[in-house]
Amino acid sequence: MSASKFDPKTLSDREEIRDILVLYAKSLDRRDYAALRRVFTPDATGNYFGAGTHQGAEKIAAFIERALSQCGPTQHLLGSIEVDVKGDAATANCYLQAIHVGKRAGYEGKVLTVWGIYRDRLVRTPEGWRIQYRELETTHADGDIGMTL
Amino acid sequence: MSASKFDPKTLSDREEIRDILVLYAKSLDRRDYAALRRVFTPDATGNYFGAGTHQGAEKIAAFIERALSQCGPTQHLLGSIEVDVKGDAATANCYLQAIHVGKRAGYEGKVLTVWGIYRDRLVRTPEGWRIQYRELETTHADGDIGMTL
Amino acid sequence: MSASKFDPKTLSDREEIRDILVLYAKSLDRRDYAALRRVFTPDATGNYFGAGTHQGAEKIAAFIERALSQCGPTQHLLGSIEVDVKGDAATANCYLQAIHVGKRAGYEGKVLTVWGIYRDRLVRTPEGWRIQYRELETTHADGDIGMTL
Repeated sequence: MSASKFDPKTLSDREEIRDILVLYAKSLDRRDYAALRRVFTPDATGNYFGAGTHQGAEKIAAFIERALSQCGPTQHLLGSIEVDVKGDAATANCYLQAIHVGKRAGYEGKVLTVWGIYRDRLVRTPEGWRIQYRELETTHADGDIGMTL
Repeated sequence: MSASKFDPKTLSDREEIRDILVLYAKSLDRRDYAALRRVFTPDATGNYFGAGTHQGAEKIAAFIERALSQCGPTQHLLGSIEVDVKGDAATANCYLQAIHVGKRAGYEGKVLTVWGIYRDRLVRTPEGWRIQYRELETTHADGDIGMTL
Repeated sequence: MSASKFDPKTLSDREEIRDILVLYAKSLDRRDYAALRRVFTPDATGNYFGAGTHQGAEKIAAFIERALSQCGPTQHLLGSIEVDVKGDAATANCYLQAIHVGKRAGYEGKVLTVWGIYRDRLVRTPEGWRIQYRELETTHADGDIGMTL
C-alpha cells in the first residue's frame, strides 16, 4: 500500500508542459511563428549562448525565423524530457537532436546536426503553461550548411 | 486555483495511444508482423507517399515486411509525440528517426537514415485504440542500402 | 462508455518509472555517479553484453564511470519508452541513441554513435521505483573514439 507520487492534477500539468515543449519544436519545423510566440510569456527570455540572448517572445521568434530562413527541411526531435512542477511554476529539461538540411547554393542536401539540452522555467498563466526562460546548451554539432547567426 | 487541462480518462487515453504508436515502431524492429497488424483497424489506410498507399492492416503489414526483409537491424525511434483526443477519435503526430542497416551484398554495415513525421487518425474500439489512417512524410533521408520499394 | 485502461495510480507509476529511466541517461551525461547509483537497487544487475555483467549499483556505476572518463561530451537520448506495471514490479523497454564525442589524442571531435535497447525490470521500494535488472542490447554502432571497455 503506497501513495501515488503524482496526483491527477500534477499528471495533467506535466502532460501540458510536455505539449508546450513539443509545440516549440514543431513550430520551428512548420515555420509557424505565430504558434511559436504563444509558447512563451510575452516577456520571456531566450538564451541561445553563442547565438545571443533574446528578450520577449517577439524577439525570440524573430531570431529563430532569421536562422531557419537559411535552412531547407528541419527536424527538432525531443526526448528524455524531465518536468518538475511546483505549484504555478515548473522547470523542464529535455534533449534535442536537430537536423537542418542545407538550401544555400553549394550546401543543398548537406546536413547540420545539433545535439543539445533545453533548460526551461515555465509559469502557469490563464491561457495555460508558458515558457518564461529557455536556454539551449549545445552538446555537439556536426556539418555545415553555411548558416550565419 | 485552476482546473486541470486533462482529466484522468483523457490522460489514460493519451497514454494508451502513445503505447500504440510505440508498438508500431517496435513491431517493425522486432519483425513482429502479427503485433503490427493489431495496431491498425482491419480497414486502415497506410499512406507512405512515394512508396504507395496500402489499404487494410494486412496489406500495410505485407508492404512493411517486404521493405524490412531487405534490411539488417533497424531502429525506429519516436519522439515529440502529440496526441489530441476527442471522444472516441483522436489524432496524433510524432517524429521518426529511423536507421536501417544494410544486409545486401555490397551494403553490409552501411546505414540508411530516415527522418520523418507520422500523422495518424485513431479510433477507440472494443479492443482499445487503433490506427485507422497513418501517413509518413519523409523530412530527409541519407545513405543507401540498396532497398527497392 | 468505456473504462479507462490506466487508473491514476498506474499513470503515476508509469510517469515515475519513465523519470528513473531518464535520470539514468542524464546522470551519465552529467557524470553524476551519485545520482546514477540511486537509480538502481543496491543489489541490481547491469548486463552490458560484450562489455560485461556488473553486480550491484556500485559496480555498475564504476563500470560506466571508467567508460565515460574516456569521452568528451555525450548525449544519451531515450525514446519509444514502454512501461508495464504489475503491482510492485514493472518492466520497461526503451530505445537509445547515444553520441560520445572523442577526447583522446587523435580522436578529438570524432563521434561514436550507439543505437540500442534498454530492457529493465524495476521494483517499488520505500524510496520509489528502482531498476533491479538492466540490459543494453546494441542495435548498431558507428564511429571510433578509441574507447576501451
